[in-house]
Amino acid sequence: MSLDAIVREGAADSSVIMLGGGMPATELFPRGSLTRAFRAAMDDPTAAALQYDWPEGRIGLRKWVAARLRRRGADVDHNAVILTAGAQQGITLACQFLVRPGARVRVSVESYPAALELFRQREAVLALGKEPADCAYVMDGIDNPHGSAPDPDARASLIREGLPLIVDEAYAELDFESRIRRPLLADARDRVWHVGSVSKTLSPGLRTGWLVPPPDLVERVRRAKFTSDLQSSTMSQLLVERFLTTEDYDAHLVRARDLYARRAGVLSTAVRRHLPEWRFSEPAGGFAIFLKTDHVAEHPTADEEWLRTATGHGVAFDPGALFQARPGSGTLAMRLCFSAADDEHLIAGVKRLRTAWRAHLEA
Amino acid sequence: MSLDAIVREGAADSSVIMLGGGMPATELFPRGSLTRAFRAAMDDPTAAALQYDWPEGRIGLRKWVAARLRRRGADVDHNAVILTAGAQQGITLACQFLVRPGARVRVSVESYPAALELFRQREAVLALGKEPADCAYVMDGIDNPHGSAPDPDARASLIREGLPLIVDEAYAELDFESRIRRPLLADARDRVWHVGSVSKTLSPGLRTGWLVPPPDLVERVRRAKFTSDLQSSTMSQLLVERFLTTEDYDAHLVRARDLYARRAGVLSTAVRRHLPEWRFSEPAGGFAIFLKTDHVAEHPTADEEWLRTATGHGVAFDPGALFQARPGSGTLAMRLCFSAADDEHLIAGVKRLRTAWRAHLEA
Repeated sequence: MSLDAIVREGAADSSVIMLGGGMPATELFPRGSLTRAFRAAMDDPTAAALQYDWPEGRIGLRKWVAARLRRRGADVDHNAVILTAGAQQGITLACQFLVRPGARVRVSVESYPAALELFRQREAVLALGKEPADCAYVMDGIDNPHGSAPDPDARASLIREGLPLIVDEAYAELDFESRIRRPLLADARDRVWHVGSVSKTLSPGLRTGWLVPPPDLVERVRRAKFTSDLQSSTMSQLLVERFLTTEDYDAHLVRARDLYARRAGVLSTAVRRHLPEWRFSEPAGGFAIFLKTDHVAEHPTADEEWLRTATGHGVAFDPGALFQARPGSGTLAMRLCFSAADDEHLIAGVKRLRTAWRAHLEA
Repeated sequence: MSLDAIVREGAADSSVIMLGGGMPATELFPRGSLTRAFRAAMDDPTAAALQYDWPEGRIGLRKWVAARLRRRGADVDHNAVILTAGAQQGITLACQFLVRPGARVRVSVESYPAALELFRQREAVLALGKEPADCAYVMDGIDNPHGSAPDPDARASLIREGLPLIVDEAYAELDFESRIRRPLLADARDRVWHVGSVSKTLSPGLRTGWLVPPPDLVERVRRAKFTSDLQSSTMSQLLVERFLTTEDYDAHLVRARDLYARRAGVLSTAVRRHLPEWRFSEPAGGFAIFLKTDHVAEHPTADEEWLRTATGHGVAFDPGALFQARPGSGTLAMRLCFSAADDEHLIAGVKRLRTAWRAHLEA
């Protein structure tokens, strides 16, 4: 059975506690506001939400994105913003310009799986550390899977170095201490491909994100967006635009950070108590922690076997190999998400992992 | 000023009658049904519409697509269906497997602009007629921009020939005589990339379409969809799925075909009366007619000048060059859409075109 099949089997079984997936908390979805926005959209005689729009998307939402970046110190006009189907499409569009077969893309040792898979599909070489690179993929603000904040020295060196950068801020608004950073865009406007999204903060199902490419490439990126899917969902853009321009998004973010920070604490405490062999860094934000053991994985399917054992004990996680630029490094790892489970399930899930881990070691 | 700039200027000016754009009629959008679907989605305690889903999309909608294709004679299981952001993303995904730089893609002399632009971006060679080709792009059912039905001999020869085919059925449900054809998929399952959409029949703003790739490539296409944008909007999928599975879609299609057929008649009659120099084929379905003159376009910007003249006289259209596989063929052409204008605007628009055309000839 493939990894994907095991993941799906676990997800389909409601008795399995799901600590993988990286999903936002259902209770944070602003259903009331979105319902008001939907009604307003249906009352509009032109029904713009259901009709075609321009490839770059609605001007109101692009203005919101540009203004928010300007407040953080970046020189961005709304004409430079292209709305995308989530952060992932922003990364994909950037790759169409930066990543040809054989290109060396610098990534972190552990990073966002769908970006790694994309680079591999495009036949890129994944570069680590000081290895030569043609461009770099950076999760700024808060990274996935560690939930860690960026190291200021590493950021300064990124700016000095002069590489084209794909800067993914998908989790940046979920810094538990509400730190607002100067975006890398502000210091390297002509070679940063800035990627943002409301998938983690409002709703992933609406698939609404944005890309700010280098200024001289905006028109070509707009054409690439057009041939990708003509435009992103007008309905989604309109719902998100109305929320961001009529509701208090920052107050919403405070509620989200509070909930996630509390859950992060519950999960961390449970792991320290019940899974002392698994090391992790205390998260500074985001949805998850990334755990490693010293336990040597003896063969390439070690991740699969550990996940299968865990699922058999009623708990699932995201296998570490998905996040590894060079999987099969020799020790087992996993991502546990605190975002979408309540305290009771977090604690029960970790206890099941303890039992599963003992069984796995004895097997 | 670029063509794009002239088009946008015309679209922004409410005094300009827009006969371009290829937009569905606003009055056909099923707002009541979609509102009921939205309410049901918000009442769902898991709020699935706002959450992540699998890359291939909701099973209910995929089952609907597969069942509809099976009724037309194709052997398609829902596991072979991948939901996409409209037909365009289906074509793009197919290109990732079929169209490498230098590939020869056979197209019609006039075809769908966003597909032509995509092939050019991918550095393909556009092949016409009997020229050698590696694959073919075919608008089956009803084509764009002519609104014509397929020639049975051409279809038979396509099946015999054995090329990989990207088959775009975006307009197929809008055949004015409600003809239901055996899909090309049914006769060449292993080399047809079948593309469908509800953009023309329900709503383009929801960006919901599908791709049925050759069976042995489904898993790889699913991974390509994942790295493109993770998945299409869950919200859109859910609204469309609920409409298609709980409302009478075929009755909706009858209303749509009736409206468009009537408008096609109004536009055709007006063109024959007021623009006798412009030739076109009577449409068999779809949104538009494609008109040609014998008037020689003396330089490459002739299309732009004619559109600018028309916009100056209060009417806009889609310039012919957008649809031409080999633009600059020497004579002026244009697409006029009857889909989104009422009778009065269709007639007034054609009268303005007459005045504009006289002014253009005298200039």
